[in-house]
Amino acid sequence: MSYSEIEYEVRDGIATITMNRPERLNAYTYVMRGEMIDAFERIDADDDVRVAVVTGAGRAFCAGADLEGGGDTFNREKRTEMFGADLLEDGTPRDGGGTVALRIAQCLKPVIGAINGAAVGVGITVTLPMDIRLASDKARFGFVFARRGIVAEAASSWFLPRVVGIQQAMEWVTTGRVFDAEEARAGGLVLRTHAPDDLLPAAYALAREIADNTSAISIAAIRRLMWSGLSATTPWDAHVADSRLMAALGQSADAAEGVTSFLEKRAAEFPMRVSTDLPAEVPDWPLR
Amino acid sequence: MSYSEIEYEVRDGIATITMNRPERLNAYTYVMRGEMIDAFERIDADDDVRVAVVTGAGRAFCAGADLEGGGDTFNREKRTEMFGADLLEDGTPRDGGGTVALRIAQCLKPVIGAINGAAVGVGITVTLPMDIRLASDKARFGFVFARRGIVAEAASSWFLPRVVGIQQAMEWVTTGRVFDAEEARAGGLVLRTHAPDDLLPAAYALAREIADNTSAISIAAIRRLMWSGLSATTPWDAHVADSRLMAALGQSADAAEGVTSFLEKRAAEFPMRVSTDLPAEVPDWPLR
Amino acid sequence: MSYSEIEYEVRDGIATITMNRPERLNAYTYVMRGEMIDAFERIDADDDVRVAVVTGAGRAFCAGADLEGGGDTFNREKRTEMFGADLLEDGTPRDGGGTVALRIAQCLKPVIGAINGAAVGVGITVTLPMDIRLASDKARFGFVFARRGIVAEAASSWFLPRVVGIQQAMEWVTTGRVFDAEEARAGGLVLRTHAPDDLLPAAYALAREIADNTSAISIAAIRRLMWSGLSATTPWDAHVADSRLMAALGQSADAAEGVTSFLEKRAAEFPMRVSTDLPAEVPDWPLR
Repeated sequence: MSYSEIEYEVRDGIATITMNRPERLNAYTYVMRGEMIDAFERIDADDDVRVAVVTGAGRAFCAGADLEGGGDTFNREKRTEMFGADLLEDGTPRDGGGTVALRIAQCLKPVIGAINGAAVGVGITVTLPMDIRLASDKARFGFVFARRGIVAEAASSWFLPRVVGIQQAMEWVTTGRVFDAEEARAGGLVLRTHAPDDLLPAAYALAREIADNTSAISIAAIRRLMWSGLSATTPWDAHVADSRLMAALGQSADAAEGVTSFLEKRAAEFPMRVSTDLPAEVPDWPLR
Repeated sequence: MSYSEIEYEVRDGIATITMNRPERLNAYTYVMRGEMIDAFERIDADDDVRVAVVTGAGRAFCAGADLEGGGDTFNREKRTEMFGADLLEDGTPRDGGGTVALRIAQCLKPVIGAINGAAVGVGITVTLPMDIRLASDKARFGFVFARRGIVAEAASSWFLPRVVGIQQAMEWVTTGRVFDAEEARAGGLVLRTHAPDDLLPAAYALAREIADNTSAISIAAIRRLMWSGLSATTPWDAHVADSRLMAALGQSADAAEGVTSFLEKRAAEFPMRVSTDLPAEVPDWPLR
Repeated sequence: MSYSEIEYEVRDGIATITMNRPERLNAYTYVMRGEMIDAFERIDADDDVRVAVVTGAGRAFCAGADLEGGGDTFNREKRTEMFGADLLEDGTPRDGGGTVALRIAQCLKPVIGAINGAAVGVGITVTLPMDIRLASDKARFGFVFARRGIVAEAASSWFLPRVVGIQQAMEWVTTGRVFDAEEARAGGLVLRTHAPDDLLPAAYALAREIADNTSAISIAAIRRLMWSGLSATTPWDAHVADSRLMAALGQSADAAEGVTSFLEKRAAEFPMRVSTDLPAEVPDWPLR
């Protein structure tokens, strides 16, 4: 499958999704939404992908929803027609940013956002279920929804206060103002900032460290454990999930290799594959 | 209605509540509690109020519960008599700080704490459901409950670890020590500190930015979404709530104006009013 | 009872647990696990203990699971035999780190981790339910599970994102890399760092401040309130719990002494004891 509004490339175990409408600052469309969901399906299905990196072509990361529909952009009838196959049980069209955000949340591989420029509206909320956000020190950010007469979407009411804390979240969403990369870093939205030319190399170095040193099965299980651990759970729920996974993985080929390679002071060569060897004990995260 | 222990003023879209017992360092009483709840009812009902600011008269913000009752201050019989109309179903008198905190949590307008001086005991816990806390760099703080033989109240066991993280919360509540504004800022309790004379201007500038640029309907919906998103929920719950609100607001006059004004590069004039136009899709946050 | 792999000492109201296998960098074993659980039983039962400090003998804090079993270390059959009495209802052996972590989570006294050196694997996850972590500025940390082919355990999928935030958590667990004390402090894992010789004095000074100034009953109630407040709850749940505890404690001898001593500007002498006077209103935290 080839895409029209994103690029998708896999190299050395790392998949890169590049939002690719630079002439529109990579503004988000219904087409882009479908292509991103499809790309994450491929990422999960392809054992050659250990880590995903998401970035933007040109000078922006993603400037938000494409507003070329003008005042009619968020109209329900228009969106119901467009999103025809994607409705809640009561017939409400599903928020488009949320369909991508929830797909990212369920991904079995780590996802790194490499925010190269403006990340505004859905352009930033869609990154919140990514594990790690790195940013260019020239990037700019805005949760501008209240300035457009709509609400913060993409399930950001769940993700944002958990990522940056409720006080910082409320300051950004109630003012709707645009802010710079240093404020994003200090406020916990991005983990580190880099000079523009150093951003993608830094993202790939981080992806490389994960891909070269860890068990893909461990990472898939841990990613699901950690994110679902932020849902409505207790430590006992976590303990039950841990116990089942330690029982399932403790006797696995990856655990044997992980411990043996460590004791032998050599790099591990983990034999297990996500497509075939993922234990049934990896917890579901009910997102529908 | 006029108040005896607080002042209430609305100017240019901003309501100011001033705790006003400066001779007692604005110590918290049953009267003050009732007046604050009443003021928040007015704030929600008054479309001319876009943002609320809470501060203290004189040199303190609020020094905590008024202890003029001495060792009998927290006695249940005394409090049951005083709080007669405000009991749990089992007859237990409701914690007084909590009744104000939960009212603030449900407010449909953003609430900014402008902490001008000492904020101790209920004087700080009651601010935790506010969206943003700014402080004078001379302010002092203390979660002193364990030094008085009682517990941290005002639902702070829910709010405090979510605002500042569980480790910082536990250090402050188990020592019960008094700490300064810089520590409060570094620990995430207040967002920014200001020289004493700059505090109220900073709070009003922030309120101004919200009031001048955003849809009151968007803000009410987002505030409810974000805070309830921290409760026992999943991202799917958030997505359902988002989808319903995007469907309800996407075709609204505020969304049309928000997008059109942005495209026309002019200030928005949002026509909708909280008192009459709040969509039924704004989620409840079950606080009783 | 005397222990073989930990030391246990009570002095001036402070219990110290020292993991004591310095020749193995205090690597975690089934014996150590049982001794730590037993020590926390003693801490809760002994009114002479107001605060617990956990540290390591020699140059490490705890280097993680003892891997002398080699590739077989995490094998289920081996663990089922060893953990015979400690199974989930479905027969799965309970994760060993989790049994200690959940016991610490339920402790009625504040727990301070004094991380004197390497804290890796279960050596760091087991500290997450402690209230406060202080570290030597020479300490090193690693959530190395994905490099061993297993998962992050000890209920860390519940604790870690709540202690340090989900973004920092994911960076540490997906890379599995070892990092230093300054990064641990900046990322919120430890509250403060100290020169090696200053670490235990700082931990004892903090313990001293708690023990000398607070009601043991207040602390037990607040500890349970705060941690359970991070579970699947709403502010209303917190308010009900607060109200019941304020009603129970408001008329207690400790509350009378706390307020009276404050008004008299003297040190409080709290008369109540955890072993006999803990109110029934202190909330359970269902951890099994």
